[in-house]
Amino acid sequence: MNKLFNSEVRVKILAVLYGADYCEFTYLLEKLKTTEGNLWIHLKKLEKEEYVEIKKYPSKKRVKTIVKITEIGRTKFKKYITELLNLI
Amino acid sequence: MNKLFNSEVRVKILAVLYGADYCEFTYLLEKLKTTEGNLWIHLKKLEKEEYVEIKKYPSKKRVKTIVKITEIGRTKFKKYITELLNLI
Repeated sequence: MNKLFNSEVRVKILAVLYGADYCEFTYLLEKLKTTEGNLWIHLKKLEKEEYVEIKKYPSKKRVKTIVKITEIGRTKFKKYITELLNLI
Repeated sequence: MNKLFNSEVRVKILAVLYGADYCEFTYLLEKLKTTEGNLWIHLKKLEKEEYVEIKKYPSKKRVKTIVKITEIGRTKFKKYITELLNLI
Protein backbone atom coordinates (compact mmCIF):
# COMPACT_ATOMS: atom_id res chain seq x y z
CA MET A 1 0.00 0.00 0.00
CA ASN A 2 1.06 3.57 -0.67
CA LYS A 3 0.35 6.31 1.88
CA LEU A 4 -0.14 8.92 -0.83
CA PHE A 5 -3.34 7.17 -1.87
CA ASN A 6 -4.77 7.36 1.66
CA SER A 7 -6.51 10.60 0.72
CA GLU A 8 -9.51 11.18 -1.50
CA VAL A 9 -8.18 14.65 -2.38
CA ARG A 10 -4.75 13.36 -3.47
CA VAL A 11 -6.25 10.54 -5.53
CA LYS A 12 -8.52 13.05 -7.24
CA ILE A 13 -5.68 15.52 -7.90
CA LEU A 14 -3.78 12.73 -9.65
CA ALA A 15 -6.91 11.71 -11.57
CA VAL A 16 -7.31 15.23 -12.97
CA LEU A 17 -3.62 15.50 -13.86
CA TYR A 18 -3.50 12.00 -15.33
CA GLY A 19 -6.12 13.09 -17.84
CA ALA A 20 -4.84 16.62 -18.39
CA ASP A 21 -1.04 16.42 -17.87
CA TYR A 22 -0.97 19.84 -16.24
CA CYS A 23 -3.43 22.43 -15.07
CA GLU A 24 -3.81 25.60 -13.05
CA PHE A 25 -4.19 25.49 -9.28
CA THR A 26 -7.52 27.30 -9.63
CA TYR A 27 -8.80 24.62 -12.01
CA LEU A 28 -8.01 21.91 -9.46
CA LEU A 29 -9.71 23.95 -6.79
CA GLU A 30 -12.89 24.14 -8.82
CA LYS A 31 -12.83 20.47 -9.84
CA LEU A 32 -12.15 19.11 -6.37
CA LYS A 33 -14.46 21.43 -4.45
CA THR A 34 -12.09 21.82 -1.52
CA THR A 35 -10.40 24.79 0.15
CA GLU A 36 -7.20 26.50 -1.05
CA GLY A 37 -5.38 25.53 2.13
CA ASN A 38 -6.37 21.89 1.96
CA LEU A 39 -5.52 21.60 -1.72
CA TRP A 40 -2.15 23.19 -1.06
CA ILE A 41 -1.32 20.74 1.77
CA HIS A 42 -2.03 17.75 -0.46
CA LEU A 43 -0.16 19.18 -3.45
CA LYS A 44 2.91 19.71 -1.26
CA LYS A 45 2.78 16.05 -0.17
CA LEU A 46 2.57 14.92 -3.78
CA GLU A 47 5.41 17.28 -4.72
CA LYS A 48 7.61 15.96 -1.89
CA GLU A 49 7.33 12.44 -3.31
CA GLU A 50 7.86 13.76 -6.83
CA TYR A 51 4.42 12.81 -8.10
CA VAL A 52 3.78 16.39 -9.23
CA GLU A 53 5.73 19.55 -10.02
CA ILE A 54 4.45 22.93 -8.97
CA LYS A 55 5.49 26.02 -10.91
CA LYS A 56 4.59 29.65 -10.60
CA TYR A 57 4.32 31.95 -13.58
CA PRO A 58 3.90 35.71 -13.58
CA SER A 59 0.58 36.67 -15.05
CA LYS A 60 -1.11 40.00 -15.80
CA LYS A 61 -3.04 40.24 -12.57
CA ARG A 62 -1.27 37.83 -10.26
CA VAL A 63 1.08 34.87 -10.20
CA LYS A 64 -0.37 31.74 -11.73
CA THR A 65 0.34 28.37 -10.18
CA ILE A 66 0.62 25.46 -12.57
CA VAL A 67 0.64 21.83 -11.44
CA LYS A 68 2.10 19.11 -13.64
CA ILE A 69 2.10 15.35 -13.14
CA THR A 70 5.54 13.68 -13.34
CA GLU A 71 6.38 10.32 -14.90
CA ILE A 72 6.52 8.86 -11.37
CA GLY A 73 3.07 10.26 -10.57
CA ARG A 74 1.67 9.01 -13.85
CA THR A 75 3.07 5.50 -13.37
CA LYS A 76 1.95 5.22 -9.74
CA PHE A 77 -1.56 6.50 -10.45
CA LYS A 78 -1.97 4.15 -13.40
CA LYS A 79 -0.93 1.23 -11.17
CA TYR A 80 -3.37 2.34 -8.46
CA ILE A 81 -6.39 2.79 -10.72
CA THR A 82 -5.68 -0.43 -12.64
CA GLU A 83 -5.46 -2.43 -9.40
CA LEU A 84 -8.66 -0.82 -8.15
CA LEU A 85 -10.63 -1.52 -11.33
CA ASN A 86 -9.30 -5.09 -11.44
CA LEU A 87 -10.67 -5.71 -7.95
CA ILE A 88 -14.22 -4.72 -8.91
CA MET B 1 -15.18 14.53 0.64
CA ASN B 2 -15.78 11.38 2.65
CA LYS B 3 -13.31 10.27 5.31
CA LEU B 4 -13.99 6.60 4.62
CA PHE B 5 -12.29 6.99 1.24
CA ASN B 6 -9.10 8.36 2.82
CA SER B 7 -7.65 4.86 2.89
CA GLU B 8 -6.39 2.71 0.06
CA VAL B 9 -7.36 -0.43 2.02
CA ARG B 10 -10.95 0.70 2.57
CA VAL B 11 -11.39 1.76 -1.05
CA LYS B 12 -10.09 -1.64 -2.16
CA ILE B 13 -12.32 -3.54 0.29
CA LEU B 14 -15.33 -1.74 -1.22
CA ALA B 15 -14.04 -2.42 -4.75
CA VAL B 16 -13.91 -6.17 -4.09
CA LEU B 17 -17.34 -6.20 -2.45
CA TYR B 18 -18.87 -3.99 -5.13
CA GLY B 19 -17.97 -6.65 -7.67
CA ALA B 20 -18.70 -9.68 -5.50
CA ASP B 21 -21.54 -8.57 -3.15
CA TYR B 22 -20.08 -10.59 -0.29
CA CYS B 23 -16.97 -12.62 0.42
CA GLU B 24 -14.99 -14.33 3.14
CA PHE B 25 -12.58 -12.38 5.32
CA THR B 26 -9.77 -14.67 4.15
CA TYR B 27 -10.53 -13.86 0.52
CA LEU B 28 -10.22 -10.11 1.21
CA LEU B 29 -6.99 -10.79 3.05
CA GLU B 30 -5.53 -12.53 0.03
CA LYS B 31 -6.77 -9.96 -2.48
CA LEU B 32 -5.61 -6.92 -0.52
CA LYS B 33 -2.27 -8.31 0.62
CA THR B 34 -2.48 -6.70 4.05
CA THR B 35 -2.39 -8.05 7.61
CA GLU B 36 -5.36 -9.55 9.50
CA GLY B 37 -5.18 -6.78 12.10
CA ASN B 38 -5.12 -3.99 9.56
CA LEU B 39 -7.95 -5.48 7.51
CA TRP B 40 -10.02 -5.89 10.65
CA ILE B 41 -9.51 -2.24 11.70
CA HIS B 42 -10.72 -0.98 8.31
CA LEU B 43 -13.66 -3.39 8.16
CA LYS B 44 -14.81 -2.17 11.58
CA LYS B 45 -14.73 1.44 10.34
CA LEU B 46 -16.78 0.51 7.30
CA GLU B 47 -19.21 -1.46 9.50
CA LYS B 48 -19.63 1.47 11.89
CA GLU B 49 -20.79 3.68 9.00
CA GLU B 50 -23.00 0.85 7.70
CA TYR B 51 -21.08 0.41 4.44
CA VAL B 52 -20.58 -3.30 5.18
CA GLU B 53 -22.06 -6.01 7.37
CA ILE B 54 -19.83 -8.56 9.06
CA LYS B 55 -21.25 -11.95 9.99
CA LYS B 56 -19.71 -15.02 11.54
CA TYR B 57 -20.78 -18.52 10.59
CA PRO B 58 -19.81 -21.77 12.26
CA SER B 59 -17.76 -23.91 9.94
CA LYS B 60 -16.27 -27.42 10.24
CA LYS B 61 -12.85 -26.31 11.35
CA ARG B 62 -13.39 -22.79 12.63
CA VAL B 63 -15.77 -19.85 12.48
CA LYS B 64 -15.98 -18.22 9.06
CA THR B 65 -16.26 -14.47 8.75
CA ILE B 66 -18.33 -13.19 5.87
CA VAL B 67 -18.34 -9.54 4.78
CA LYS B 68 -21.23 -8.12 2.77
CA ILE B 69 -21.61 -4.70 1.18
CA THR B 70 -24.78 -2.80 2.13
CA GLU B 71 -26.92 -0.63 -0.13
CA ILE B 72 -25.29 2.42 1.50
CA GLY B 73 -21.82 1.05 0.77
CA ARG B 74 -22.74 0.18 -2.79
CA THR B 75 -24.22 3.63 -3.47
CA LYS B 76 -21.31 5.51 -1.89
CA PHE B 77 -18.65 3.46 -3.66
CA LYS B 78 -20.42 3.86 -7.01
CA LYS B 79 -20.51 7.63 -6.50
CA TYR B 80 -16.81 7.67 -5.54
CA ILE B 81 -15.56 5.61 -8.47
CA THR B 82 -17.79 7.46 -10.95
CA GLU B 83 -16.47 10.83 -9.76
CA LEU B 84 -12.91 9.56 -9.93
CA LEU B 85 -13.23 8.19 -13.45
CA ASN B 86 -14.97 11.36 -14.61
CA LEU B 87 -12.00 13.42 -13.42
CA ILE B 88 -9.53 11.47 -15.57
